[in-house]
Amino acid sequence: MRAVDIIKKKRDGKPLSEEEINFLIKGCSSDDIPDYQITAFLMATYFRGMSYEEVASFTLAMANSGKIVDLSSIKGVKIDKHSTGGVADTTTLIVCPLVAACGVPIAKMSGRGLGHTGGTLDKLESIPGMRVSLPLEEFVDIVNTIGISIIGQTEDLVPADKKLYALRDVTATVDSIPLIASSIMSKKIAGGSDGIVLDVKVGNGAFMKDVDEAAKLAKTMVNIGESAGKKTVAVITDMNQPLGQAIGNSLEVMEACEALKGRGNRDLMEVCFALGSLMSILAGVAKDREEALDLLIDVLNSGRGMMKLKEMVMAQGGDVNALEDYSLLPQARFKYELKAKVDGYVSKMAAERLGICAMKLGAGRERKESRIDLSAGIFLNKKVGEYVNKGENIATLYGNDEKRLQEVLPEAEASIKISGQKEGRRKLVYGIVRRDGIEMF
Amino acid sequence: MRAVDIIKKKRDGKPLSEEEINFLIKGCSSDDIPDYQITAFLMATYFRGMSYEEVASFTLAMANSGKIVDLSSIKGVKIDKHSTGGVADTTTLIVCPLVAACGVPIAKMSGRGLGHTGGTLDKLESIPGMRVSLPLEEFVDIVNTIGISIIGQTEDLVPADKKLYALRDVTATVDSIPLIASSIMSKKIAGGSDGIVLDVKVGNGAFMKDVDEAAKLAKTMVNIGESAGKKTVAVITDMNQPLGQAIGNSLEVMEACEALKGRGNRDLMEVCFALGSLMSILAGVAKDREEALDLLIDVLNSGRGMMKLKEMVMAQGGDVNALEDYSLLPQARFKYELKAKVDGYVSKMAAERLGICAMKLGAGRERKESRIDLSAGIFLNKKVGEYVNKGENIATLYGNDEKRLQEVLPEAEASIKISGQKEGRRKLVYGIVRRDGIEMF
Repeated sequence: MRAVDIIKKKRDGKPLSEEEINFLIKGCSSDDIPDYQITAFLMATYFRGMSYEEVASFTLAMANSGKIVDLSSIKGVKIDKHSTGGVADTTTLIVCPLVAACGVPIAKMSGRGLGHTGGTLDKLESIPGMRVSLPLEEFVDIVNTIGISIIGQTEDLVPADKKLYALRDVTATVDSIPLIASSIMSKKIAGGSDGIVLDVKVGNGAFMKDVDEAAKLAKTMVNIGESAGKKTVAVITDMNQPLGQAIGNSLEVMEACEALKGRGNRDLMEVCFALGSLMSILAGVAKDREEALDLLIDVLNSGRGMMKLKEMVMAQGGDVNALEDYSLLPQARFKYELKAKVDGYVSKMAAERLGICAMKLGAGRERKESRIDLSAGIFLNKKVGEYVNKGENIATLYGNDEKRLQEVLPEAEASIKISGQKEGRRKLVYGIVRRDGIEMF
Repeated sequence: MRAVDIIKKKRDGKPLSEEEINFLIKGCSSDDIPDYQITAFLMATYFRGMSYEEVASFTLAMANSGKIVDLSSIKGVKIDKHSTGGVADTTTLIVCPLVAACGVPIAKMSGRGLGHTGGTLDKLESIPGMRVSLPLEEFVDIVNTIGISIIGQTEDLVPADKKLYALRDVTATVDSIPLIASSIMSKKIAGGSDGIVLDVKVGNGAFMKDVDEAAKLAKTMVNIGESAGKKTVAVITDMNQPLGQAIGNSLEVMEACEALKGRGNRDLMEVCFALGSLMSILAGVAKDREEALDLLIDVLNSGRGMMKLKEMVMAQGGDVNALEDYSLLPQARFKYELKAKVDGYVSKMAAERLGICAMKLGAGRERKESRIDLSAGIFLNKKVGEYVNKGENIATLYGNDEKRLQEVLPEAEASIKISGQKEGRRKLVYGIVRRDGIEMF
């Protein structure tokens, strides 16, 4: 077998066999196939796509390029959750404790933020003392003891993806549905859970800009998961405005705590309930959406969700006091208020632009190797559809670099529109994608 | 400027500026842009193509990546000739001496054979003592003295093409019209001649399998040449059957000598006259095709064409006696005759398959680094349309490896078809592509 023949087949739109795909991924991992052949293959894939069979083989080959986490010693149906990345989207820190409190074991590996989107690991690290890289045995132990643990991906998890992603990043082959789907799903499969709930974001702040594309990505990922023997469901949710109110790491931890204390933002909670009910159903602790919602509301109202987060933070060395006394979380030295210049209804909050503003303040990474400021970010006091009076605070910007704050302020202002007309509330959950079809709302 | 942005633009089908193209080629030559970005760009180009403006800039940037040969000290309009590669196609060794004998200075850099196609340099090297790598001053001196010299490309000629070609070869990006055209034309432009006549082959033995594609390639190359200030014309000629009768290096030298002595194969001569008349017109030694043909037939019949070949061979250290006494050329130890099994008309001689047979006998290179046997090859005693009696010799195979000969014999036999019906003579010259349009026959 020769790499050039595999590239040619893909270039010509002919289906690749499982053997050819394995050869390619093995050669990529072992460096037997040089990078310049891999990137030609990636670009051919950008243009030609992959069939469901191809992308399933490709993903499994990637998952098998490293260690597959063995969660078999954990009882119950282990459920993982993944979001394709959003702004002010701290759902993981809310929904995972809630679902764990319902009795669903959560052994989750999360990632870091990049560009305008945040990452759960960074958020967790803003809790003083919190350890996010644990030995696998400890990770499994914590899940067995308290029912939930969230850590970073181990070094030996899907090495092929690390290499492929680095190559895609510099060759304009990132935005290809099969390559996105296989990158995400290889890590989920290697993560060892039994079921996976995917949150596919769509809108100006998401990777997928329109619902059809998002549905295609969701369908591809669900197919991959099911091919690998994992129960997989995807929810397509809105990312045209920031989901919650907090953008930035310690700000989002605060928002998650407030939510778990029953004071969550309505939009944020809607998506959390959508995801949480699917996770509960997949795990078998609820038979349908109604039963799942009852359970989730019960653990929320009783404080057992919040308790679960505290247990996890404690088990991973974090300071639980910071979840009550937020002043123990990293604090920014400066804060600027963004004030409404007119009376009116908030008609637009551009998610990507606000995400980029927060990134510039230090909350996110422009490049993978950038350092972040855990205290920086933006807190939105208003969301789309709400009324503001002239002079009222719409958003607060947090940071440690005053000059940067001054620069970002007008950009943040330009991302928010106020108009005379009140707009109807936007749809947040567009649809659910299951193995047997798509249900759009 | 970043390579990834240029790749993305090409991926999205947006036109690249001259600056972007120069940045890319400079980065490729200097290794500042890694190969894995270059190959992603090449694959994107395979899918998106290039506009005439882009491919002209790309070609000039490539030509400028190395030394541009200075032929200004040679008087007259220097004409170059290039063929996209054929089987039994020894036109260069016939037409260049003929045209030179008409007073057109020929300072030509040729290449070697690859795969089923031959290369002029290899053919020349089968003449004992012949030197094909000369210092540029000597090359120019010979052209100034006798009017013709053919040598190999110097090391510093279009280094970007060497690198790009090596990468294309292993990434299935060879067969892209803008990449083929720029590779050929960058070398022609760097070669320093004032005019270029291109022989674009079409048919089963050629790179271009159909006339439309060949015309597109021809048009692209003519545009590039004219953009670079070179008078450029292309002829589209047939390569469904081998052009002449000899496939293999010393065999083709013999065929060329026979042709220059007035005993040339009719098909081979037809293409030589087509190319030769265009070269003469471009150089200004003839005003039209009729005048050009008169000149060419005159130098052929008077033996001045043959004399010109001898002068060149002598000037480059070759043994001119070998052009009269062919036993002085490399001789194969074994020869096998391929005999007709039935009476009938030769209805097919598959050019590519026969070229591969000759390659397997040692006449050609499977890979660039393969060694060749200058004496090996195939001589066709019959061509399509001719009648053969059962038992008559259709072709003779030459080689030094008896086992190989035995293996190749049935393959060669299978490449030739004999049928009861006589077919009409196939068209050999399909059309001429000029700056101002295509004239198809």
